[in-house]
Amino acid sequence: MKLGWIGLGIMGSRQAANLRRAGHELTVWNRTAATAEAWAAEHGATVAASPAEVAQDAEIVFSMVVDGPQVQEVLVPAAREDVLFVDMTTIGPEWTRRVGEQLAERGARLVDAPVTGSSPRAEDGTLTIMVGGESGDVERVRPLLEIMGELIVYAGPLGAGQAVKLINNAVAAANAATLAQGLLVGSAQGLDLDALVAVMAAGSGASTMLTLKAGPMRDHDYTTLFKTEHMLKDVRLCLDEAENADVPFPAAAAAADALSAAVFRGHGSDDFASLLEAYEGFANRRL
Amino acid sequence: MKLGWIGLGIMGSRQAANLRRAGHELTVWNRTAATAEAWAAEHGATVAASPAEVAQDAEIVFSMVVDGPQVQEVLVPAAREDVLFVDMTTIGPEWTRRVGEQLAERGARLVDAPVTGSSPRAEDGTLTIMVGGESGDVERVRPLLEIMGELIVYAGPLGAGQAVKLINNAVAAANAATLAQGLLVGSAQGLDLDALVAVMAAGSGASTMLTLKAGPMRDHDYTTLFKTEHMLKDVRLCLDEAENADVPFPAAAAAADALSAAVFRGHGSDDFASLLEAYEGFANRRL
Repeated sequence: MKLGWIGLGIMGSRQAANLRRAGHELTVWNRTAATAEAWAAEHGATVAASPAEVAQDAEIVFSMVVDGPQVQEVLVPAAREDVLFVDMTTIGPEWTRRVGEQLAERGARLVDAPVTGSSPRAEDGTLTIMVGGESGDVERVRPLLEIMGELIVYAGPLGAGQAVKLINNAVAAANAATLAQGLLVGSAQGLDLDALVAVMAAGSGASTMLTLKAGPMRDHDYTTLFKTEHMLKDVRLCLDEAENADVPFPAAAAAADALSAAVFRGHGSDDFASLLEAYEGFANRRL
Repeated sequence: MKLGWIGLGIMGSRQAANLRRAGHELTVWNRTAATAEAWAAEHGATVAASPAEVAQDAEIVFSMVVDGPQVQEVLVPAAREDVLFVDMTTIGPEWTRRVGEQLAERGARLVDAPVTGSSPRAEDGTLTIMVGGESGDVERVRPLLEIMGELIVYAGPLGAGQAVKLINNAVAAANAATLAQGLLVGSAQGLDLDALVAVMAAGSGASTMLTLKAGPMRDHDYTTLFKTEHMLKDVRLCLDEAENADVPFPAAAAAADALSAAVFRGHGSDDFASLLEAYEGFANRRL
């Protein structure tokens, strides 16, 4: 199939490479043209001079850029009748719906398909992809998404993929905040934290956050898997959606406070396990 | 080895049976004497007329009763020189240390060894057992604990087993509270909750609470695995300990509020998944 791809960063370059390896013809565009040239030379693809040129060549165009304003900036001018855009950037449901309306005015369609999983999973084609949009559009792109991901979940109308991703991340941030507090309380009581972690891992206190973050928190090692400032952005977007729906999400709000405090302490580019520092500061005690 | 056992309820009867099957001689006592007679007839054991008589017969005496006052009431009069008591009741570190001091005045010793896992795991000998006490005492009872549990974790000085259990349960309650909020926010946005749960289960939002409680919450099915009032008791004990250590545990405090509201709504004897009802009431929305 002739496909378009916009955005060849850390994630996008790996996802597009999987589509290419599966035998699809690609026309690509990237803000930094040299990146697109190098990628096309390596994988075999046509480089377009603009996003609009990508959409001239392809009926399905994927985008993986940075944020809502960028998605709007590259997709809207490229929109033409009957093109289906698949935006895989995490921009929140509000931006997605806004861009979707602008594309619809030009006769184009949009599906949102944000991902979870870092670059190794983008490379292996084992991402989790959360999809929102009209079911016919989603079914049309599903075989292509299955090349990039191992779990493709259809969540509902346009923006629903974004909303599911944000809630997942907010729950993760809240579980990480709870973990940080629990470790601090245990430490203050003089408990063996190996014992505490082993008990939680074997039972009702277990979570992905325990598995991934208990060690880094105990070592104050914030080597970045997912940046504190990015997690803060996602949790805040989730809180906006919760507010729009008139439903409180106090655990996420508390996590946002801690993430925000960690960013203020200079941990914005560190891993979000650094939210521990906010609780350490509050308790005036080091884990 | 000649062992004593005090308390033959749902858990204690199954744990003691495993010690018996492993070939140990048991002297038992239970508040309701008929229960002890029936147990002894089935498993082969001596029935004592009082806790003190249990301790006359055995150098290691286990207890699995209801709460701190009961532990104090049965163990202190039974204390004599060189007897090692192993209390497996969940009573919190403060009661444990209090009883430990009273036993020490009489020359007896105490290890705390509360458990997690319900009656099937008591029956199978696959409990998790968290142990606090002097390391020599703990090593002496470890082979016996290994008959009753599959994970035996030494957590620190007397009361540390209790403290680890309480933190684990508080983290579980807080993760369950976060889950309830996340499901409500997703539902209010019109998301497919199957999709939301699948995404969380595959990634950073996963937890034992998600695995165990998302289904019951969505069905409003509070068939009891662990009572709301018991979880509330444990979380409050944990908050007492955190306060004693001058460390805040806001996620646990918020969970206690929700558990308390669920108890007030009549869910005390239901499963603690019922804390969902507190958030439903707050948001004036049903999942």
